[in-house]
Amino acid sequence: MFREVVYLKPEEMPRSYYNVLADLPFKLDPPLDPKTGEPMRPEKLLRIFPEPLLEQEVSDKRFIPIPEPVLKEYAVYRPTPLVRAHFLEEYLGTRTQIYYKYEGLSPTGSHKTNTALAQAYYNKISGTKVLVTETGAGQWGSALSYAGAKFGLEVRVFMVKISYNQKPFRKVLMNLFDGNVVPSPSKLTQFGQMFDEGHPGTLGIAISEAIETVLEEQNAKYALGSVLNHVLLHQTIIGLELKEQLKKLEITPDMIVACHGGGSNFGGTILPFIPDVLDGKDIEIVAVEPESCPSLTKGEYRYDFGDSAGLTPMMKMYTLGKDFVPPAIHAGGLRYHGAAPIVSKLLYEKLISAAAVSQDEVFEAGKLFAKVEGIVPAPESAHAIAYVIKEAKKNEKKTIVFTLSGHGYFDLNAYVSSLRGNFRNF
Amino acid sequence: MFREVVYLKPEEMPRSYYNVLADLPFKLDPPLDPKTGEPMRPEKLLRIFPEPLLEQEVSDKRFIPIPEPVLKEYAVYRPTPLVRAHFLEEYLGTRTQIYYKYEGLSPTGSHKTNTALAQAYYNKISGTKVLVTETGAGQWGSALSYAGAKFGLEVRVFMVKISYNQKPFRKVLMNLFDGNVVPSPSKLTQFGQMFDEGHPGTLGIAISEAIETVLEEQNAKYALGSVLNHVLLHQTIIGLELKEQLKKLEITPDMIVACHGGGSNFGGTILPFIPDVLDGKDIEIVAVEPESCPSLTKGEYRYDFGDSAGLTPMMKMYTLGKDFVPPAIHAGGLRYHGAAPIVSKLLYEKLISAAAVSQDEVFEAGKLFAKVEGIVPAPESAHAIAYVIKEAKKNEKKTIVFTLSGHGYFDLNAYVSSLRGNFRNF
Repeated sequence: MFREVVYLKPEEMPRSYYNVLADLPFKLDPPLDPKTGEPMRPEKLLRIFPEPLLEQEVSDKRFIPIPEPVLKEYAVYRPTPLVRAHFLEEYLGTRTQIYYKYEGLSPTGSHKTNTALAQAYYNKISGTKVLVTETGAGQWGSALSYAGAKFGLEVRVFMVKISYNQKPFRKVLMNLFDGNVVPSPSKLTQFGQMFDEGHPGTLGIAISEAIETVLEEQNAKYALGSVLNHVLLHQTIIGLELKEQLKKLEITPDMIVACHGGGSNFGGTILPFIPDVLDGKDIEIVAVEPESCPSLTKGEYRYDFGDSAGLTPMMKMYTLGKDFVPPAIHAGGLRYHGAAPIVSKLLYEKLISAAAVSQDEVFEAGKLFAKVEGIVPAPESAHAIAYVIKEAKKNEKKTIVFTLSGHGYFDLNAYVSSLRGNFRNF
Repeated sequence: MFREVVYLKPEEMPRSYYNVLADLPFKLDPPLDPKTGEPMRPEKLLRIFPEPLLEQEVSDKRFIPIPEPVLKEYAVYRPTPLVRAHFLEEYLGTRTQIYYKYEGLSPTGSHKTNTALAQAYYNKISGTKVLVTETGAGQWGSALSYAGAKFGLEVRVFMVKISYNQKPFRKVLMNLFDGNVVPSPSKLTQFGQMFDEGHPGTLGIAISEAIETVLEEQNAKYALGSVLNHVLLHQTIIGLELKEQLKKLEITPDMIVACHGGGSNFGGTILPFIPDVLDGKDIEIVAVEPESCPSLTKGEYRYDFGDSAGLTPMMKMYTLGKDFVPPAIHAGGLRYHGAAPIVSKLLYEKLISAAAVSQDEVFEAGKLFAKVEGIVPAPESAHAIAYVIKEAKKNEKKTIVFTLSGHGYFDLNAYVSSLRGNFRNF
């Protein structure tokens, strides 16, 4: 009758990140300099990223030790629990066993702090004083603000103006951690000044403002919350813990599921399982994305810019095109035109698969999960839940594990607008 | 370097509630019928509460078994962890050891679900179809909505209109759990109809509307989230778990601290330690309340009504008077004119003490806690933190345990208005 929860002890936390590049039987296509069409030299990026992170970006070492100060900060909320979704199974009346790895216990409610803390640390030891970034829904901006407060860095966040106005609590959370937030487009950059006061902003504009700020200021660096190799690397702590927890349960999952936006939650969850897949173990790995922003399921695999403004190196990835404007869906973290190069390559090589779910399914799944499992999932995470529910309804005797990447307590507005028809008030 | 966290296994969860009335060397003064001035006969309350809860209200059994279906539901989020506040200690540079029992992991983010689930269960087995209640800040309303969804009861919540308008997310959370919410004063009751459209509402009016609804509807019962003996009884699961966890650490705390509004979080935490105090153990127990609503520190110990409208039985308690209008402080859960009769009696008999903290201290403490310990505390819980910080600054070699009754992710507005001067935006 009691729920199964697997906690790891703090001292059982992984001591190294896992670098999948060391184990892949193929190489990633290199980022290209858009001006020359030649592979980008990492040195060229030193103005915006600190050296240790650029080294990680191209490293071929299998394990990269997690620095002690980062381990110490992880211990604030890690290891995170692995939970059997008994109540969901019971509700569905399924023979499928469902487990979820819960990342919502982090200080800002999502997995984003896993890389934010690492990036803040490596910047700190590299002499950075100011970290500049952009944020859409605000999960990344709040994670970086928290990490900046922990390691004594000033953090400045360009927040897409429409989110800044619609998600005031995310801004407050950043402020609570001493993050400085400005709506983008702003008047602080030449690029931002090109837009009207009433412009709602885009992630592309915000990235451009952040990079312009970094280029104009000594000791300022840029931080990105997804897509890049080093970001996925830091997130592998999720999958490494998960492997330990599954070992304690003596379970080999038949399927691992995670939602996919830029690829940091998905990659962090599944990369440590790739060696098993390469060894021939029968584990189905599924990235779940929104039908309305189907980079992996409907995108092309080709070189494209990482941002909309065309400032970044070109990366080989599944993309809907840098000019693709995703509809204003309520899972801000999944509104990205492209996908992490590592994830894209794994998909192209058929080591993983991808699926898309509709917004209606997502919020119904989120509401159901809240009612039976007692956690309101972030809309992003509810994509994974929606897919898992469909799988579990097949009633097959198998085990599915998914990552619940964050809670939805800051996203209740999204639930309101999606489920309005279902809300009764007397 | 790693943080100390004490988890109990699900099967280590207490199987009974603890009833302190069995161990007290004195009797509580009985509730009085306001019409006759005579002790209230429990039968008279059967129209609004189900029999099992009224039995618990006056029980003298030391342990009352937790029904299996309630235990099963507790397992969704219990046992809750006991955490060493290492980072806070380090920040303060104190020799004092600080631990907190964290109740914010519950489905609605506070300890309120502990009694909501029990009340919903006992109502269900008593044939209740509709549970009616009032809510101020919304913590109780959302907890009861969740519990109602779990046990198949319709839940109707009269929410104080000003909170309904200012805290839209709490309402959404209730809706997500299928709770029906109406702003009070409403047009649904005769009492509510007496007020103008623009009236902001009070808890007193909302209680009156809820009780009127119950009296007019078959199979409807009323549910209260604090103050009463049976509510504190259900909350003792907090203190019982805490005792187990301290036993594992081989620690006897020198001081136990919890915030106090109506008394359910405070009582739930400390009642299981009262036998130790009666045995002569040197444990200082402190209830912390807001300076602006100082029932325990400045109230009179006398008979008073539990509500503002004067509909409830008279209870012997510390009170500021039923007509006391607390200022609009940002910890809605602590805006109560009175105090639980059990807590009041313990204070009167000097088995516990009480202290008041200012709103500035509270939000500064909450912000600090968020930055160092990685959890944004509910403003209510931040009262306990503010007190603990003051104690820890004395730098004495001792151990303090406090209950962190909930998280503050729904209360970020309160942080904004209290800390505005401290928020920098570039």
